[in-house]
Amino acid sequence: MTQGLFIIYTGHGKGKTCAAFGQALRAAGQGLRVCIIQFVKSRACGELTALEQLSGSTGSVEIHQVGSGFSWRDKEMTRFKESALAGWQLARDKIGSGDCDLVILDEFTYLLHFHILSPGDVLPVFTQRPEKMHLLVTGRDPGEELLDAADLVTEMREIRHPFKKGVAAQKGIEW
Amino acid sequence: MTQGLFIIYTGHGKGKTCAAFGQALRAAGQGLRVCIIQFVKSRACGELTALEQLSGSTGSVEIHQVGSGFSWRDKEMTRFKESALAGWQLARDKIGSGDCDLVILDEFTYLLHFHILSPGDVLPVFTQRPEKMHLLVTGRDPGEELLDAADLVTEMREIRHPFKKGVAAQKGIEW
Repeated sequence: MTQGLFIIYTGHGKGKTCAAFGQALRAAGQGLRVCIIQFVKSRACGELTALEQLSGSTGSVEIHQVGSGFSWRDKEMTRFKESALAGWQLARDKIGSGDCDLVILDEFTYLLHFHILSPGDVLPVFTQRPEKMHLLVTGRDPGEELLDAADLVTEMREIRHPFKKGVAAQKGIEW
Repeated sequence: MTQGLFIIYTGHGKGKTCAAFGQALRAAGQGLRVCIIQFVKSRACGELTALEQLSGSTGSVEIHQVGSGFSWRDKEMTRFKESALAGWQLARDKIGSGDCDLVILDEFTYLLHFHILSPGDVLPVFTQRPEKMHLLVTGRDPGEELLDAADLVTEMREIRHPFKKGVAAQKGIEW
């Protein structure tokens, strides 16, 4: 029995986005068509530069960065909401089209935290996707309703993090 | 303050190897030289096919699969030990040479579980590596001594897994 899986990588530890991109790499290497929509990160990450070079015999990877970053300051929050909703529209189109085998919504759960979307908005779209399509959502605290709907959930639990020892974020490791 | 980090991705949940390959992708995209040694997996994974296509402006990724698979049957266990020890020699050479910016030892902790190596064998090599070199180890139950020596530890905790519902491993998702 095989089926399209709804996967959630959550938790407060490091590794969610890395695992999502590793999953994209694995899927593309097996000839799958992958679409990644990043809802928060918007700077040039190493994984983007690298993935853009994939071509040829592997499947395809398309990446959309819709996150304009976010801030508690009012103006930026308005901009974040707008870009998030545009990203959600793109996600709905990609999921509905059936043109991808794996859709990755990176840092998507922020849209639920900030009440830009509700579980009632997103779950019908997720559960009524094409039968063979895999869906991977990352982000902290997705909430019970999303967790209940998922087929596979891994919590990336922080055991130790170097920021707490005063080590700065480093190129190639954190971005 | 920046420094070479010793990172462990552990836990019984899915995502450790994906996160390691995502990390390799990120690092390579930032121009770092990455060396991956896989101690257990030996079949053609999608991520390998994909990573092999990376070239050009990104850093380099070299991948060595030293694991011949393993089994509780005596003969295979002997072969696994031999290949594991050869892999460890390769890891020591790579770490000692300083030719890489990130060394990834995927599923390395099995060598400790099966008492092929002890923490006393590996920790001096890990802690005396070149100062700027990042080291990433994946695998279940690394043990207290490795955990204590690490700068960053994430536990991939299994919350839900589709195998338990009878869904088979799928190309592009599990390999």
